[in-house]
Amino acid sequence: MESNLAHPYGSHLSIRLHVDGPVNKYPAKAHARRVADALSSSSSSDSSSGDLIVVTAAKSRPWPDSDMPAPFRQARSFYYLTGCDEPGCCVVYDIKHDKLTLWLPAIDQSRVVWTGRGSTVEEALEKYDIDDARYLSKSSSPLPRGLDHNEVVYIHDEHDSLPVTIPRSLKRPALQNRLKQAMDACRVIKDAHEIDLIRRANQISSDAHVAVFKSLHAFTNEAQVEATYMAHCIASHAKEQAYAPIAGSGPNGATLHYGANTADLDGAETLVLDAGCEVSCYASDVTRTVPINPSRPGTWPSPESEQIYALVEQIQEACIAQLRPGKAFVEIDRLSRRMTIDGLLKLGILKGDVEEIELNGTVSGFFPHGLGHHVGLDVHDVSPAPHPPAIPRAPISPMKDRKVDESEEEIRLEEEDEREEDDEHEWKLTEEELEAEREEIAMMVHAAQYRIPPSLPSWSFHTSPLFSRPPYDPTSLLRPGMVVTIEPGIYFNRALLEQKYLSDPYYHGPLIDRAVLDRYWKVGGVRIEDDILITRDGYENLTPAPKGREMCGIIQRGGDGDCQI
Amino acid sequence: MESNLAHPYGSHLSIRLHVDGPVNKYPAKAHARRVADALSSSSSSDSSSGDLIVVTAAKSRPWPDSDMPAPFRQARSFYYLTGCDEPGCCVVYDIKHDKLTLWLPAIDQSRVVWTGRGSTVEEALEKYDIDDARYLSKSSSPLPRGLDHNEVVYIHDEHDSLPVTIPRSLKRPALQNRLKQAMDACRVIKDAHEIDLIRRANQISSDAHVAVFKSLHAFTNEAQVEATYMAHCIASHAKEQAYAPIAGSGPNGATLHYGANTADLDGAETLVLDAGCEVSCYASDVTRTVPINPSRPGTWPSPESEQIYALVEQIQEACIAQLRPGKAFVEIDRLSRRMTIDGLLKLGILKGDVEEIELNGTVSGFFPHGLGHHVGLDVHDVSPAPHPPAIPRAPISPMKDRKVDESEEEIRLEEEDEREEDDEHEWKLTEEELEAEREEIAMMVHAAQYRIPPSLPSWSFHTSPLFSRPPYDPTSLLRPGMVVTIEPGIYFNRALLEQKYLSDPYYHGPLIDRAVLDRYWKVGGVRIEDDILITRDGYENLTPAPKGREMCGIIQRGGDGDCQI
Repeated sequence: MESNLAHPYGSHLSIRLHVDGPVNKYPAKAHARRVADALSSSSSSDSSSGDLIVVTAAKSRPWPDSDMPAPFRQARSFYYLTGCDEPGCCVVYDIKHDKLTLWLPAIDQSRVVWTGRGSTVEEALEKYDIDDARYLSKSSSPLPRGLDHNEVVYIHDEHDSLPVTIPRSLKRPALQNRLKQAMDACRVIKDAHEIDLIRRANQISSDAHVAVFKSLHAFTNEAQVEATYMAHCIASHAKEQAYAPIAGSGPNGATLHYGANTADLDGAETLVLDAGCEVSCYASDVTRTVPINPSRPGTWPSPESEQIYALVEQIQEACIAQLRPGKAFVEIDRLSRRMTIDGLLKLGILKGDVEEIELNGTVSGFFPHGLGHHVGLDVHDVSPAPHPPAIPRAPISPMKDRKVDESEEEIRLEEEDEREEDDEHEWKLTEEELEAEREEIAMMVHAAQYRIPPSLPSWSFHTSPLFSRPPYDPTSLLRPGMVVTIEPGIYFNRALLEQKYLSDPYYHGPLIDRAVLDRYWKVGGVRIEDDILITRDGYENLTPAPKGREMCGIIQRGGDGDCQI
Repeated sequence: MESNLAHPYGSHLSIRLHVDGPVNKYPAKAHARRVADALSSSSSSDSSSGDLIVVTAAKSRPWPDSDMPAPFRQARSFYYLTGCDEPGCCVVYDIKHDKLTLWLPAIDQSRVVWTGRGSTVEEALEKYDIDDARYLSKSSSPLPRGLDHNEVVYIHDEHDSLPVTIPRSLKRPALQNRLKQAMDACRVIKDAHEIDLIRRANQISSDAHVAVFKSLHAFTNEAQVEATYMAHCIASHAKEQAYAPIAGSGPNGATLHYGANTADLDGAETLVLDAGCEVSCYASDVTRTVPINPSRPGTWPSPESEQIYALVEQIQEACIAQLRPGKAFVEIDRLSRRMTIDGLLKLGILKGDVEEIELNGTVSGFFPHGLGHHVGLDVHDVSPAPHPPAIPRAPISPMKDRKVDESEEEIRLEEEDEREEDDEHEWKLTEEELEAEREEIAMMVHAAQYRIPPSLPSWSFHTSPLFSRPPYDPTSLLRPGMVVTIEPGIYFNRALLEQKYLSDPYYHGPLIDRAVLDRYWKVGGVRIEDDILITRDGYENLTPAPKGREMCGIIQRGGDGDCQI
């Protein structure tokens, strides 16, 4: 279902995008115009012709209590309007005159021998798609002289690095919010230049995953996986990572953002490698799960790990196939959960009624995150924020019409008795605990409205951008130019399952077959993740890293003379 | 001159150090006692028996405007008192009762499936050298109940992460300063456990440098150097770097903190690799400079690069040989500058009188940083801050008694004429520029007092800790247990030399032979750096990475079947 990508935008879009300057420049000017359009279309006043947009770059800072610089990460909103990855800058877009001016820190000669220098004005004009470039100074303001008091100045200054010559009184939270919403709305739809950067990041990350596959047979510790992956990225000039690489074997693969990557592979059946680099500040987000099997590299060491991998692979393929403009992402997310339930029922790990399992959200014990998120300048890229749901107050009561068989009922009643004896005082809830319970209920109500399983953690960022209410947030319907991840996963996380699901006598416990589950702990976790571009006709998968049978073949063959760290 | 290291401390030290808890635990309790002793010896009041020390850990934070966590770096002062690398903690040392209590963030069950969890109280008591461990909560304060108002509470809260139950009014800047000074004074002298960590970091970094030497013949780009170095560190479970690795070839080697590491090696004669990892938050700081010579790997491609390398190597060896307790580091720094002058005079790059060159500080055009600094929990480790120098106001005038030959004098006068014509208005200095000139003069006066070359940049951190006034700052005399770098370097940085030295008609220009210098630009930069422990009898070099002939031999032989990225 691959489709022509040269012009991924449908004719129904009112904004026509094209790169303004020389072909290889980041299209900063086009982005500035889009943001201005978005602002004016959201503005209630007519006389917005004199407005200015001011966005500041990140500063270069030392670690607290140290003279060493902390890692620098450019402010994404600033990059979106400039394509400039240098610290201490500021950009001003004069909407009326359609003029984009980049303000650079003055060259500090005393620092040149230490860190080199930033761009000169001449270099900046050459490199960036801007109309003018100037040096910041203590005497000249980036704002035009004789600024009319009626003019609206939108300032986005997330890093508190506004030049001293711009009065801080101009920073108005309401205008900053409007600007941020406009920028986020624009950033959701990627143009050809942005897609190319995401594609290149995906290519490097995928090659780095393949480098791991080739040497996997020789590895005995997670650290070797990370080392090989990182070496490939660094050698490919992509040392900046969109997130800290995750190389989790066995149970570590079931901690979603595991990052130590130092455990021996001994005894593990799988390893989750979730690692993606950046290219020019654009992210890739790639996950592959590989079999750990020293005696037969490239084959799954048990039926259980093979079954879970096959299930996740099947879910991912089915979900990807659903992607097309106009589709609600939340529907695809629901499909992934239905398929997970069906698969776990077939394996005997879940038992009972499909509808009931779905309504209770028991599957979130095995698949505790969203199906995907936007990818762009941030790995969890922005989308316009949805309205927070109203929180109704509701009493706590177990479901009344759930059917259970009698033996289960007996066990449950026994467990309940024990619990009442042990923790009697805990049943008297404090006001704080009651409030927490109420909020949880509210989440469940909200979740039911949008078909989000109630156990899906409310603090999961995966749940926020793509699950918002369609009438308010248009991004919940897929549109050409969006790039989203599809990343189903199944995990056997003891802490999560034992403390929240198996121990719950009402909703979850009776729906899980503990004896069958016990055979699956060894699988750890399986996740497969690709970055997918929504095109006019469907989608294009931007992640070329092999998976499934092809991946296993590479692991099996190994590398001849390849890097073995 | 290697010496027995088991007890590096002389009997003249009044504080006896030994690890308090089980052998492998970081000696947190001993550190807390040392800091308390340092506080009480600096205290003017007698009744300090009830004092408390409170130090907070760093927080885990997202990048601004993002949901992704920024890299975490533990607060060094907190680590020094706990050995704990976990975020969100707080440590309290009750001096009177000699009780060290670690306060841990409560386990957040909803986060466990995402990031795992921090230590439990039980695990913390097992892992760390502490008397007690507890969970932070909104209701219980880490401070003892009924805290007497006369008691002194020293709070160090660099990361603004003080638990909500400790009143912020207790944060008193004067006490924070005293605590900081006491901790810094203690940290200057390393104990056996700390030395072991620095030694291990040096071993891994050195092995990673050797991995680069072995594959250097196959490399065509700086990125391959960084990739190989990093891969070795990561595979050795030392992915945390004490600073961003520098792999600068040709002219990039002359930018002291270069970090892009993406240039082709084509045409370069040298590559400066300055890269050191951390082990348990303790730094290593290692620099090697290698020949880039594809046709004959391991040999210097020109007499010029060979000469400069030999000179730097000779200076480093001579300086290291000077290290012993009681020696003033500033004297060794001066030796390194004298030797650099002698060497550059012999090569013909400098010309004129040794004393004059030294007094003018012309050598700083080629050696623009200090000879070394402390190494420990920070790569540029702390030492008690020296008093800032008083800044006298002095008129600007060229030296009167300097001899120049007549042809030079003519050229200079011509240049002066041209300059007066071109920039006549620029001679009228603004008040701001006059102030800057006055400060520069003051620096020169200060520098002359302490024999610091006046061109040594005042903002160089290298100059501050180890160049302070002996009567005030005892650390300027070397003591057993200190770990310092010895890192002479010679650089041919066009920006620095052309804009500040060659163009200066009074002090520097006449002392540099431009024609000879022109043959040396291709050398780029050469720096060699080891971490040296001061022992009771002399020193021990903690950096096993080969240099000089041994290093070149490894490059020449290459690696059989070694990693080639």
